[in-house]
Order: sequence, then C-alpha cells, then structure tokens
Amino acid sequence: MAQDSNLLVGFETSDDAGVYKLNDEMAIVVSADFITPPFDDPHLFGEIAAANALSDIYAMGARPLTCLSLVGFPTEKLSLDILQGIMQGASAKIVEAGAVLAGGHSVDDLEPKFGLAVTGIVHPDKIWTNAGAKPGDHLVLTKPVGSGVILNANLRGWVSAPDLEACVAHLRALNRDAAEAASGFEIHAATDVTGFGLACHALEMAEASKVALTIRIDDIPVMQGALAMYRRGMSTGSNESNRETAGERISIERDLPAWHENVLFDPQTNGGLLFALPAAQSEPLIEALSERGLVGHVIGSVEPHDPASPRAPRSISFV
Amino acid sequence: MAQDSNLLVGFETSDDAGVYKLNDEMAIVVSADFITPPFDDPHLFGEIAAANALSDIYAMGARPLTCLSLVGFPTEKLSLDILQGIMQGASAKIVEAGAVLAGGHSVDDLEPKFGLAVTGIVHPDKIWTNAGAKPGDHLVLTKPVGSGVILNANLRGWVSAPDLEACVAHLRALNRDAAEAASGFEIHAATDVTGFGLACHALEMAEASKVALTIRIDDIPVMQGALAMYRRGMSTGSNESNRETAGERISIERDLPAWHENVLFDPQTNGGLLFALPAAQSEPLIEALSERGLVGHVIGSVEPHDPASPRAPRSISFV
Repeated sequence: MAQDSNLLVGFETSDDAGVYKLNDEMAIVVSADFITPPFDDPHLFGEIAAANALSDIYAMGARPLTCLSLVGFPTEKLSLDILQGIMQGASAKIVEAGAVLAGGHSVDDLEPKFGLAVTGIVHPDKIWTNAGAKPGDHLVLTKPVGSGVILNANLRGWVSAPDLEACVAHLRALNRDAAEAASGFEIHAATDVTGFGLACHALEMAEASKVALTIRIDDIPVMQGALAMYRRGMSTGSNESNRETAGERISIERDLPAWHENVLFDPQTNGGLLFALPAAQSEPLIEALSERGLVGHVIGSVEPHDPASPRAPRSISFV
Repeated sequence: MAQDSNLLVGFETSDDAGVYKLNDEMAIVVSADFITPPFDDPHLFGEIAAANALSDIYAMGARPLTCLSLVGFPTEKLSLDILQGIMQGASAKIVEAGAVLAGGHSVDDLEPKFGLAVTGIVHPDKIWTNAGAKPGDHLVLTKPVGSGVILNANLRGWVSAPDLEACVAHLRALNRDAAEAASGFEIHAATDVTGFGLACHALEMAEASKVALTIRIDDIPVMQGALAMYRRGMSTGSNESNRETAGERISIERDLPAWHENVLFDPQTNGGLLFALPAAQSEPLIEALSERGLVGHVIGSVEPHDPASPRAPRSISFV
C-alpha cells in the first residue's frame, strides 16, 4: 500500500487509532469499534458500546469530535424500541464526551451489534502512542481488570449484585477523566486495555516501544469477584487465544494456578488506560486521578530490552 | 441531543455524510457504510464496498483522507484468503482515491460484511449538501441506474456477460472523477444515488432544498438489461420499501407498467452523483464529465415548491 507521510500512526503498529496530520497544529484521530451486547439492557449496551469506542480516542491523547453509529439489528426479530434504547444510551455518552453524532450506517443483521466510528483531534506533538515507553518508566493502570469473566459468569447468574454493579460502573465510565488527568504529565506511551487483555495490550506497548516490562501480579487491580469466577471454572471465549497470542513473549515468574493466570488474559470492554511515564511522575498522576474520583495503580516498570540478555525474547515478566 | 454549532451537517438532514467545522479553512467530513457481498469474488467485493463508502465523501465535495475497515467475517465458515482478497480489493480503491487505510475493526460474524468509515476534508465554504437546489437548476446524473436488479437477476443466471460487465464497471468506479469534474461549477446541491434508489434520493434533495423536481423518465440513463429484468419479473428486496417511502410525495405522470416504474426505486451500490446546478452550466458539466470519460445526463429540472399549487404536497413529478 502506498504510504502517505501525513499518516503519523497507521494500522501496522497495533495502536488504538489511526492518526493523520492535517497541518502543524492539527491531526485527526480515527477509530471504529462495535460489539455484541453483554447485557439485555439496551440503554446500558448503548452506553458501554459508545464508551468503548470513544476510549480509543482518549488512549491517543485526543479529543473526540464526531461519532457515526455502526448498527447491525435484526428488525424482524427485535422491537425497534430496543434499537432506540441503544441509541439513547450511546447518545448520552456522546454528549458526556462533548462530541456529536454526525450520522451512521445500519444494516439488517442476524444479531444486534452496535458501535461507533469516531473522529477526534489532537496536536501532532501531543499524540500518545504505544511506542514511546522508556526504561525507568512506571506503568500506571486506571481501571481494574476482570470484566470479561464477570460478564460471562453473569450470564449463568454466578455474580453477586454488588460485584456486577461495580463492574458495570467501570464499563460505563468514559476514559476521558483518566486522559485529562494524565494530560499534565509526560506520558511516554499509552494504550487502553480491551479485548486482548492486559497481557497482550502491554505486550503491544513493549514491542512497539522496543522495551521490556516487569509487571507485579499483586499490584494489578482486579474487579471484585473476577478471581472467584475463574477459580470456579468460568472463563471467556478470548482467554485462550489471548494466551496463545502472548505465547513465549511473556513469562509468568510466579507459581500461580492456571485459573489465577487467566486474569492476565481477561478481555476488557472499555478497560482502563495503561500509561508509561517517568517514575517520579507516577505518584503525582495517581494523585491527579484521585482528584477526579479515579483510582490509579502503579503495576510495574519499564526496562531495556536487551536481545542478548537471558530474558530475551521475552517482552514481559509477570512477577 | 445537545447541538454543537460546528456540526455543519448532522444526521437529521438525510445527507450523505456529517460535516464538522475545524476552523474557517477546514471541515472534516465523516461517513460509514458497509454492505454484504453482491458477488462471490472477494477482490471485487472489496473494491465495490470501498468505492461505495468513499462515494459519500465525494457527494459532499470533499476529499477522503483516512479509511477504517469495518469487517464482519465468519472465520469458522470461510477461509481467511477470502478476507484477504476483500482487503486487497478495498486497499486498491483506497490507494486510487489517494486516501490511506488507518486501521479498522473486525468481528466474527455469521455472514461476511465489509465497508469503510471514511474521514475526509473540505473547505467549509465549498461543502455540497443536498439542501441547496434552486428553482431553474438542471439535474445531472453521472451514472445509469439499475444495478440493484441486475445483481439480483445475476444470482439466477439471467444476466448476459456483457450486461454484467458493464454494470460491474460502474459499481467499481470511484465517484472521484465525477466530483472533480463538477468542482469547477456552481453546484447548488449534490447527493449520491444509493440504496433508496433515484426517486428517494432525489426526494431527499427536493425536501431538504424546499423545491419541487421534474424528472423526465425518458432521460434517466438505465443500465443495459435492467428493464428487461424488471419486465421478466425480477426485483429487489428494497424496491417495495423505497416505493412506500416515496409514497404520495412523488407522482408518476406517465402511464407506465409497474415493472418499468420499478427502475425509479432500484437500489444502487456506489451509484452516480446527482447534481443540481444552474441550467446554463449543465451542458458544460456534461462536457467536463466527458473529458474524464464519464457520461452525464440532464434528467430534469428544479421548480419552486408552492404549497398552494395543485401539485403540492408532491415533491417530484416523473414525466
């Protein structure tokens, strides 16, 4: 494919969104995401799907401007009230994000799907990619992981009401506040944790940045109830493929039962932002997150990736 | 929904794309479209789906910059070679359009779907909407209609090879050249003719512009073979709903058999651009189209829409 030097971030780098420079002051950031419903509640589905799609824009340090709805809907099987509920939920999140719904496309589908294509804007010098993490950086995560297994377990009625409510609150929450809190810091790399789970999204950051990461398992925030679900034998359709994707590129240097390891591969919807920033700035960032009602966690650190070291080719050590 | 004064064209006006003003010199134009395969040929499907999605940007007078692939694919049922073929076809069209593929999203789906979310750019003073047609204007159409019935009839083997080839050539052709040819003229309104058929897309233009249109049935270019297919009893899943959508807002003032009327409602994929421009400029536009190898047709004219006239509330008369 012919390349255009204005494409600052393309699809080759597994980044969260594409970035195209318009001029020295402005670049557009584009991303599309759509999902199937994790719940029967249409309004909640719309909120989560929209927050999930907007997250890619926040993960690049950008501000969303326009959203297009991407809709698959079985008009013969389901009432249009359901679609209206989904759209209302999405609209609420788009308004909350300060963006506008500028159109969309819908097709008759065998099962409902909903998402957004979002175009945002960022100063070309202030783009966060997953490629800039530097040895010595700390890694900060802004939401707990575990929503994948909780949603799946909830389909079987295994999840307590408080655990489900806490999970849903994270799923609905825009990553805007986390991105705003971080905007005052020297963010070297950022990504959002979504379908590939913490291990694989951190791996994308490690490899794009040509560094190694050390992540302390005990410091990873996990949603209440998620480990209990894995322990009970629940999992998700993505855990195994996420683990295979990671393969030998990660090492788990603790003697953990398999059900516990699973949380590293748990697929997130609208998961938290993962930042790499200078170690001295990690506690101030956690303070800034806290001022916005968010709980950040320092989960690890960045090290040189020395191909000659005994650890290579492993890019992440979970300790 | 809260409104933003920078949203120059939103989803309420049934326009082809949304337009958001960045500053006095630049507006972004956003649109998303995805379709199911009209053919078994993956490369051709990718080309047509991409050209179809890009068309919305051309219909606004804009230049496409970035594309995101929107993919639904049954990975268990179909070989990934098929998806690769679709992506290659789409990439070829994106390169031809001078745009870049900046990312995308794919989901496992029960049937293949493919399309693009496209972000383009336009000067805010040079946006073509469907809302500016003026009494006295001529209507110019840049491609023949009839691809809907031809594709459907082809599934039954009713279409001759030359007719199918001619249809496919139109389906694959970017509307870029037509838009470039028109860029030197005083385009009052523009739209592309897609799934709702000529009647309903012209109706959107008439109503958004608060004018009436007269369209001469004999001057509408029709793909070779399309009328024969309708005569033989073929139709599409959209003809009836398009006709119902138009309802009493159009009148067909010729005594035509129902199969012949059907071509007015024939759904197009990547159909032609429909322009309204000053009458004196229609022949020069056709000349400019011809210089780019395109055949334009003056199919009618724009008149005042006088609610007191005996024609009201009809917005289009087909004569």
